[in-house]
Amino acid sequence: MIPLEEIKRISIVSASKIVILVMDGLGGLPELKTGKTELETALTPNLDRLAADGICGLIDPVSPGVTPGSGPGHLALFGYDPFRHLIGRGVLEGIGIGFDLKPSDVAARGNFCTIDKQGLITDRRAGRITTEKNAELCELLTKIQIKGAETFVLPVKEHRFLFVLRGKGLAPQIDDTDPQKTGVKAYLAVATELEAEYTADLINKFIVRAQKTLANQHPANMMLLRGFSMLPQIPSMTDIYKLKPAAIARYPMYKGLARLLGMKVYDVDDGIEEELKILASCYQEHDFFYVHVKDTDSAGEDGDFRRKVSAIERVDAALPRLLDLKPDVIIVTGDHSTPALIKGHSWHPVPALLYSRWCRPDKAKEFSESACALGGLGRLPAVNLMPLALANAFRLTKYGA
Amino acid sequence: MIPLEEIKRISIVSASKIVILVMDGLGGLPELKTGKTELETALTPNLDRLAADGICGLIDPVSPGVTPGSGPGHLALFGYDPFRHLIGRGVLEGIGIGFDLKPSDVAARGNFCTIDKQGLITDRRAGRITTEKNAELCELLTKIQIKGAETFVLPVKEHRFLFVLRGKGLAPQIDDTDPQKTGVKAYLAVATELEAEYTADLINKFIVRAQKTLANQHPANMMLLRGFSMLPQIPSMTDIYKLKPAAIARYPMYKGLARLLGMKVYDVDDGIEEELKILASCYQEHDFFYVHVKDTDSAGEDGDFRRKVSAIERVDAALPRLLDLKPDVIIVTGDHSTPALIKGHSWHPVPALLYSRWCRPDKAKEFSESACALGGLGRLPAVNLMPLALANAFRLTKYGA
Repeated sequence: MIPLEEIKRISIVSASKIVILVMDGLGGLPELKTGKTELETALTPNLDRLAADGICGLIDPVSPGVTPGSGPGHLALFGYDPFRHLIGRGVLEGIGIGFDLKPSDVAARGNFCTIDKQGLITDRRAGRITTEKNAELCELLTKIQIKGAETFVLPVKEHRFLFVLRGKGLAPQIDDTDPQKTGVKAYLAVATELEAEYTADLINKFIVRAQKTLANQHPANMMLLRGFSMLPQIPSMTDIYKLKPAAIARYPMYKGLARLLGMKVYDVDDGIEEELKILASCYQEHDFFYVHVKDTDSAGEDGDFRRKVSAIERVDAALPRLLDLKPDVIIVTGDHSTPALIKGHSWHPVPALLYSRWCRPDKAKEFSESACALGGLGRLPAVNLMPLALANAFRLTKYGA
Repeated sequence: MIPLEEIKRISIVSASKIVILVMDGLGGLPELKTGKTELETALTPNLDRLAADGICGLIDPVSPGVTPGSGPGHLALFGYDPFRHLIGRGVLEGIGIGFDLKPSDVAARGNFCTIDKQGLITDRRAGRITTEKNAELCELLTKIQIKGAETFVLPVKEHRFLFVLRGKGLAPQIDDTDPQKTGVKAYLAVATELEAEYTADLINKFIVRAQKTLANQHPANMMLLRGFSMLPQIPSMTDIYKLKPAAIARYPMYKGLARLLGMKVYDVDDGIEEELKILASCYQEHDFFYVHVKDTDSAGEDGDFRRKVSAIERVDAALPRLLDLKPDVIIVTGDHSTPALIKGHSWHPVPALLYSRWCRPDKAKEFSESACALGGLGRLPAVNLMPLALANAFRLTKYGA
């Protein structure tokens, strides 16, 4: 891949427009009885036509065999080397709800959970309590004071919250307290590097107090923290690519990531139809548009093959609204695979299609894992999609003499 | 890719012979009416047979989406990481005409151009003046003396010349004075780093004097400079690969690059037929042969689809002369794509074929972008071709125990 510094040297401003439509967790696995994946099962006449006119391939968001988190998966799609640019879950969550993180803050993603009398976790999500209940509990936790640092506890959706520690000399090298399974106790915060021991101590003081505070709040009678992190230094997409980028997304994390890369974020309350309406309304103000679809991933996570198929079909049905705008470059792909059969993110490469007038079309006649495997993009690291998009939009000059 | 230092450790001497035939700007885009690229349109029975017996793929000279200059494109073909080994245009031009550049010289590529009364550029190539006229003008510019440095102005072909500044404390971090478009004034030399400000000052003194000297020389009444650079440190192909390499090329830049990598350069005045005659005549003295065909690129740059087709067919017709020599390994590819539809270099991956007795043939039955997209080489960075060539020539030992 070309380093960002080199892309920055050869990127130029242009009137051309690029849209990247990210169906979260798009890649799938075939159902046994049909031998077809979710995308292959879905009726997608519009995506198929776009694939026929465009060029297809399979992308590895991080590296072959590596199951990406949403952060690295998205960073790669935007051309940032996911091994070089790491964003902690806590930081993502914080930026996602618009919390004004300071460079010296340590942030973590919190879950309210349920523990039994022995302290063993019985539900990592406390039965997905309401966001209203969540807000009440955060209000209680906010009252906890620990010496040496300020703490913030802010509700996100359902059982999720943001935890921020603000003070001097903090460091984020701390293992998750969330064991990611039930039947065991929550871990205490453990520093993985010496410089983070003081921070871990502060966090543990908070955890002990929090457990007392929540003791009678069944089912949300405990909390788990993960993704301890600090704000990373990431150059903006405007700095690197000379773009005026927009993000149209519904969920906090994706909005947070987009903001971190310098995108202007447009809020959405509903699905792809509303997203594309917003896209049309701000189309003149930007030249790069990131449109995020979450339903595909949620359905995959829930193991609901049919619902994932429907989510894909819903995107396909809405696609003409996007095509009507005639962007110079359209990319449709995902940030990772979430096969319904696996009920979670997976390592499988993700189908990708790139459409432009100049893409040199391949033989792929439909948008599917099978067609993409034989497509002209080949199998390539996801970080290459962004330079390809820019090239097809004539936004890169020649490299070297 | 394997680093050069590791290739050096495992490369061995052998009696086997490798030929790499580079059709400059080979990759293309399909004509609307036929849906076929230049290479797909050309009748190439010999290349098709070689493709059927060999293994095909699509190479990215620099990185997906990146449009390569000829320098990086060729460096990659010879196995040198184009991000690590940068050769400025000025240096390439200098070596190309056999100018004895010193390590402390700063070189630039010059163009004679035409400006109007307001000083705005009307033709960046001064109507492609004759090489004879060019020589006269260089003679005039050679008389300019500036304090603090020696200057050299040497004619290349048509409107092109080499400009060299020789003195103490020079540095090459200077932006092009060539704005790469008409209707604007030529830029002055601007240093991009502090250490090059003195050099930029000297160059600007020269430019002011040159403009006066050329004032009455319509159409070549001004000059543009680009690619300010100094000699890079590049290990030779003999050092890395233990080869005795030969280059058979007509145009200065390619000869210059070949010399820089330690190849013995054989001059050519005409096309591929003469090149292959020369190849046959020096076949015993070398074990690696780089044969460069320029017509494919020139036709593409001129937007002449038919002429590019003819140039490819001419190479195909001459191919039996090469096959008669029975090299152990033959690679046919390009240093980048130059689609006639784009009239310039482009980012599209380049068709490549590798023939050897040991290549494990794929299903590709013809040499075309479409067949290469499904070929056994896959889509791969061009720097990998050279190790593949060496391997197929049994010139690499095992890596590691």
